[in-house]
Amino acid sequence: MTDTLRIDGRTNDELRPITIERGWSEQAEGSALISYGRTRVLCTASFTNGVPRWMAGKGKGWVTAEYSMLPRSTNSRMDRESVKGKVGGRTHEISRLVGRSLRAVVDMKALGENTIVLDCDVLQADGGTRTAAITGAYVALADALAWGRDKKFIAQKAQPLTDSVSAVSVGIIGGVPMLDLAYTEDVRADTDMNVVVTGRGKFVEVQGTAEAAPFDRSELDTLLDLALAGAITLTEFQNAALEA
Amino acid sequence: MTDTLRIDGRTNDELRPITIERGWSEQAEGSALISYGRTRVLCTASFTNGVPRWMAGKGKGWVTAEYSMLPRSTNSRMDRESVKGKVGGRTHEISRLVGRSLRAVVDMKALGENTIVLDCDVLQADGGTRTAAITGAYVALADALAWGRDKKFIAQKAQPLTDSVSAVSVGIIGGVPMLDLAYTEDVRADTDMNVVVTGRGKFVEVQGTAEAAPFDRSELDTLLDLALAGAITLTEFQNAALEA
Amino acid sequence: MTDTLRIDGRTNDELRPITIERGWSEQAEGSALISYGRTRVLCTASFTNGVPRWMAGKGKGWVTAEYSMLPRSTNSRMDRESVKGKVGGRTHEISRLVGRSLRAVVDMKALGENTIVLDCDVLQADGGTRTAAITGAYVALADALAWGRDKKFIAQKAQPLTDSVSAVSVGIIGGVPMLDLAYTEDVRADTDMNVVVTGRGKFVEVQGTAEAAPFDRSELDTLLDLALAGAITLTEFQNAALEA
Amino acid sequence: MTDTLRIDGRTNDELRPITIERGWSEQAEGSALISYGRTRVLCTASFTNGVPRWMAGKGKGWVTAEYSMLPRSTNSRMDRESVKGKVGGRTHEISRLVGRSLRAVVDMKALGENTIVLDCDVLQADGGTRTAAITGAYVALADALAWGRDKKFIAQKAQPLTDSVSAVSVGIIGGVPMLDLAYTEDVRADTDMNVVVTGRGKFVEVQGTAEAAPFDRSELDTLLDLALAGAITLTEFQNAALEA
Amino acid sequence: MTDTLRIDGRTNDELRPITIERGWSEQAEGSALISYGRTRVLCTASFTNGVPRWMAGKGKGWVTAEYSMLPRSTNSRMDRESVKGKVGGRTHEISRLVGRSLRAVVDMKALGENTIVLDCDVLQADGGTRTAAITGAYVALADALAWGRDKKFIAQKAQPLTDSVSAVSVGIIGGVPMLDLAYTEDVRADTDMNVVVTGRGKFVEVQGTAEAAPFDRSELDTLLDLALAGAITLTEFQNAALEA
Amino acid sequence: MTDTLRIDGRTNDELRPITIERGWSEQAEGSALISYGRTRVLCTASFTNGVPRWMAGKGKGWVTAEYSMLPRSTNSRMDRESVKGKVGGRTHEISRLVGRSLRAVVDMKALGENTIVLDCDVLQADGGTRTAAITGAYVALADALAWGRDKKFIAQKAQPLTDSVSAVSVGIIGGVPMLDLAYTEDVRADTDMNVVVTGRGKFVEVQGTAEAAPFDRSELDTLLDLALAGAITLTEFQNAALEA
Repeated sequence: MTDTLRIDGRTNDELRPITIERGWSEQAEGSALISYGRTRVLCTASFTNGVPRWMAGKGKGWVTAEYSMLPRSTNSRMDRESVKGKVGGRTHEISRLVGRSLRAVVDMKALGENTIVLDCDVLQADGGTRTAAITGAYVALADALAWGRDKKFIAQKAQPLTDSVSAVSVGIIGGVPMLDLAYTEDVRADTDMNVVVTGRGKFVEVQGTAEAAPFDRSELDTLLDLALAGAITLTEFQNAALEA
Repeated sequence: MTDTLRIDGRTNDELRPITIERGWSEQAEGSALISYGRTRVLCTASFTNGVPRWMAGKGKGWVTAEYSMLPRSTNSRMDRESVKGKVGGRTHEISRLVGRSLRAVVDMKALGENTIVLDCDVLQADGGTRTAAITGAYVALADALAWGRDKKFIAQKAQPLTDSVSAVSVGIIGGVPMLDLAYTEDVRADTDMNVVVTGRGKFVEVQGTAEAAPFDRSELDTLLDLALAGAITLTEFQNAALEA
Repeated sequence: MTDTLRIDGRTNDELRPITIERGWSEQAEGSALISYGRTRVLCTASFTNGVPRWMAGKGKGWVTAEYSMLPRSTNSRMDRESVKGKVGGRTHEISRLVGRSLRAVVDMKALGENTIVLDCDVLQADGGTRTAAITGAYVALADALAWGRDKKFIAQKAQPLTDSVSAVSVGIIGGVPMLDLAYTEDVRADTDMNVVVTGRGKFVEVQGTAEAAPFDRSELDTLLDLALAGAITLTEFQNAALEA
Repeated sequence: MTDTLRIDGRTNDELRPITIERGWSEQAEGSALISYGRTRVLCTASFTNGVPRWMAGKGKGWVTAEYSMLPRSTNSRMDRESVKGKVGGRTHEISRLVGRSLRAVVDMKALGENTIVLDCDVLQADGGTRTAAITGAYVALADALAWGRDKKFIAQKAQPLTDSVSAVSVGIIGGVPMLDLAYTEDVRADTDMNVVVTGRGKFVEVQGTAEAAPFDRSELDTLLDLALAGAITLTEFQNAALEA
Repeated sequence: MTDTLRIDGRTNDELRPITIERGWSEQAEGSALISYGRTRVLCTASFTNGVPRWMAGKGKGWVTAEYSMLPRSTNSRMDRESVKGKVGGRTHEISRLVGRSLRAVVDMKALGENTIVLDCDVLQADGGTRTAAITGAYVALADALAWGRDKKFIAQKAQPLTDSVSAVSVGIIGGVPMLDLAYTEDVRADTDMNVVVTGRGKFVEVQGTAEAAPFDRSELDTLLDLALAGAITLTEFQNAALEA
Repeated sequence: MTDTLRIDGRTNDELRPITIERGWSEQAEGSALISYGRTRVLCTASFTNGVPRWMAGKGKGWVTAEYSMLPRSTNSRMDRESVKGKVGGRTHEISRLVGRSLRAVVDMKALGENTIVLDCDVLQADGGTRTAAITGAYVALADALAWGRDKKFIAQKAQPLTDSVSAVSVGIIGGVPMLDLAYTEDVRADTDMNVVVTGRGKFVEVQGTAEAAPFDRSELDTLLDLALAGAITLTEFQNAALEA
């Protein structure tokens, strides 16, 4: 891989500085303030004993997520979706992605009839907000599950987490595949892909989009290699945060 | 590939019966009623000379799409989104996917300051509605572009279409990769992937989701092979319809 | 009555070509794709055992309807009501009219505690969409009732249908009363009337509106004559479809 | 006609006590508090010089109406439509009816590029609110037009009003046709009809609905006779109010 | 206090003419049409036996309020909130104020499991609409409580009303403190304060806002003196209405 | 004043620990992350050159505010207002309060035709969120004004800030007046008051509410004394942050 110098001096296969402040919120059952460079997402996990009525009596739990951006998380202010009176398509789409990604590593039987809502609020946005949301939400989720076990809402022997999960973006810019795109890189990308990977290295989601030019099989392969390598590092950050 | 007999007798790499009724709508500038088996989607293309104010003066056009399901297109009736007062997350997500997929084969400079809206209304749903929508919308789009050229809204020498585009779903069911899932297959899939491919065989979108179990690199590769082969056949159906 | 030649060569008391494709939808308990000339409406009937909570325990059923137009059913594209976030006045008004018209021929006691929702989606609009919706919805309703009887949700001796029902528009154009107005006729009409009539020739709804000039008693009488005659023919089409 | 004694002692062809307090609102350009028995509707007419942008430059004006009920105008409290976040079907339908009815007696060319909004707010409801709204709105409209002429927004020679307009309900209860139904009569009616009539006795709207039993031609004729007679009296009340 | 002559000839510590028409609505359990000069508010109280599900079983009642303005209550027409599809901030804020103010004089235990909704609809607005709403709502509330006792929904010995409550605005205009501002005064005020006071002279709400210039402690004291004096007179009007 | 020990050991006239992290957001023209104990509010100021169309050409600017709470800022999760599709009454009310409070210290002529939007997002809530929002928003506003002057959008000699502004809550709990209520204190308060004060010690807003028991004049006086003293300290924190 060519080693084009990126705007912030990173190599093409290098993540931005990652930090995870576990337990940032004192009110939630689990929380993490995660940053991928300047991108900062506050992830909280809310644990509720019980499930929605339509799910009750099946001995299974539920995990869902909501993603949102503060109006001035971005470079120019956006109108609030609450003021516009509806949730936009992009917000909906990312909320669904985050929810699916976390559910992929939860055994709903082991969770029992409990509900966890993951809120991912972007405080500052500089590209990769959905991937940071997934990586941070996993840490919040793990703590909320520990809380639920402590409170006896989850059986002592149950293992609701089947794996860990993290996410990262990759893309092709000027013909060069790169890992973890910052906003200025993202807008110039020909192809942009978000990859959600488990701690064991399996895929949960692969979402590749040709923004400017369709991509071929070999480009796809290179992007997946970059993403899998990045996910290994992200998993280490998650583990370090959870062991702290 | 194992040749498990599917519910409708297809082999694993076989598409359902495909039909495209071009010009089904007499009002739109382009239209197609497409069916993938029992899935039927009415696609219309509405051509408007001019672009939204915020785009004006740049010499470029715009293509967008809206996807929707009739309330009783499905096996049990769904509430109308107009009655609920908001467009759901899934609808938003698919509308955005269809729009991006079609824009990937349009040269906006060659389109000039014209707007095309693609409406994809699912009349009957049996799995793969979003992929049928994309494949059908391409036919409607092609006719709307021809109409625009006829009316001199598009320059005679301009070539707004850079390629054709079609889409198909693939998935892994009981460990077996299969092409073009019907609804009953889709709900049993461990992994579900929608792949949008150009006529020249490049990827526009790859959206793979582990519904039940994360998937590995070799499974991903097999699914992509199936999708690329299916896309070749779909392209032939599109060409046949447009030449009719 | 003067025999002015109409745009499509019809006489003033002549309906457009009527077709009814019964069972067009394979998912609904009853369905019909009806056309009055170029106007095409897909009518489905969804049968649910049980009634809304507020009606339960009274031994009576409920029939309701929703009407909607596809955005490009018309000559120029309309915004979707789901996207606008609210159902418009005209849509509401027609949905209510269709529901009332069908309820007029249903004995709710004989229906028992079952609910039928009639969805009338206009695929192509060329005037008279609400009247086609009513005529087609009757066919879908009849099939859904037969389905309910088959499934034993309706008592074997019960006769929920007390009569059939159809509808047609009439109007005065340039002083001349005409039957079944096409869109180009409708916009030029001084007076426009929608008449819903039972198979036995009684009125269910008479909705006359002076679009351009108030009308007198004798004009009203002539319009009612035209409508009653048209309804006889429409009833024959319904019966033919149901006997097929 | 049989002279069944009605709950309030009226004969079948008798209106309830009618009062019109012209100028009840001190802020509007025209206003009337009208009562049909216990039904009370506050009608205001708001005159604006100019028309919406899409109508400008055609030398024509516009008249529109909005109808609404106070939440406790009825016997049991209804939720406010503002709180529910949407205007209901019945409200929409009546607003449209009131607007059409008043436009039927306005010459838009003579009105010139001016807009009049008629607000009809039901303060107390006891049946016939839409008909009282139309009759009262005419008085408010007449005053608003006079105001517009005074302010020179309407040309001195222009005659925007081509006629007067009033409305009344009629219905068949227990086989007996009756004029101006109170709420307790309305709920028992087999057939209910709202008739909008000009001062010269021509029909503007005829909206008959078989609530319980389809009606035949001779019943329709009797109802129209009753309505036309009632309209003559209502016109006298309007004239008296405007001459006061 | 300087005795500047006000636009309507009042002294600075003088209320506008106050009238209270108790029982104006024949449908509600309690009602009052109150006027503060040209400001007219129709207040109704709707009594329901029972409380919302989330409150049931605690032996306590609930009182809530909704405030709204008719579109042409003001000098220029406002759009309806039902048509805009949402309740505005000002409306929400005043509804909450009215509810809190009335709850301050109700003993919820003595009320028992009953709900009272106070609707305050401004028919004509000339400043002070929220204060007139509170003063009038108290009269409607008192009658609804009497009705509830009559119907045995409230225990015979229970005393739900702990005091009476009224409200008035005060403000500083051109440096001069004044009582009960009319609209033209309100728009010129440097400081505007709404004060809600019980019959025994205690404060329920004090809401002072520096519209144009921050105010000091002595100005605040003078305004509170004016408001307390005004409240004594308003209480007398309330008592007179309730004794009539 | 009695020195009751409060839950966190404070005296009755003592603020919670106050911190102001100026410039927390790297994207906004001004920002501050403020905390009053565990209450944390992220305040950003967005500066736009120009004003809304309806204000243009008057040489004056505009300052507005939006307040919102993250769904899990509180002890139990709240639904998002964007998902509910409307902004609640409390949110509206506080947004309006914050906007008015800041406008009270801005000279709109000196600001020139520029717009500043203050977003106050509560990341963690433990009582006093609206007062922390006002105090923090002032710091963000001051920085945004400095930015505007740097960019020459504000004239060099203009002094848009006429004073500073801060806010604090006071209340009576168990008969004892206290400063800066934490959440557990707030819910037990008989009376709750929010006071907005300028740096020079004048009132901008006084909003006192009898939550449980009406309050008398001397209680009001004691609360105002506490608030004025607290505001002096808050002003010092603001100045310290702005001088850092």
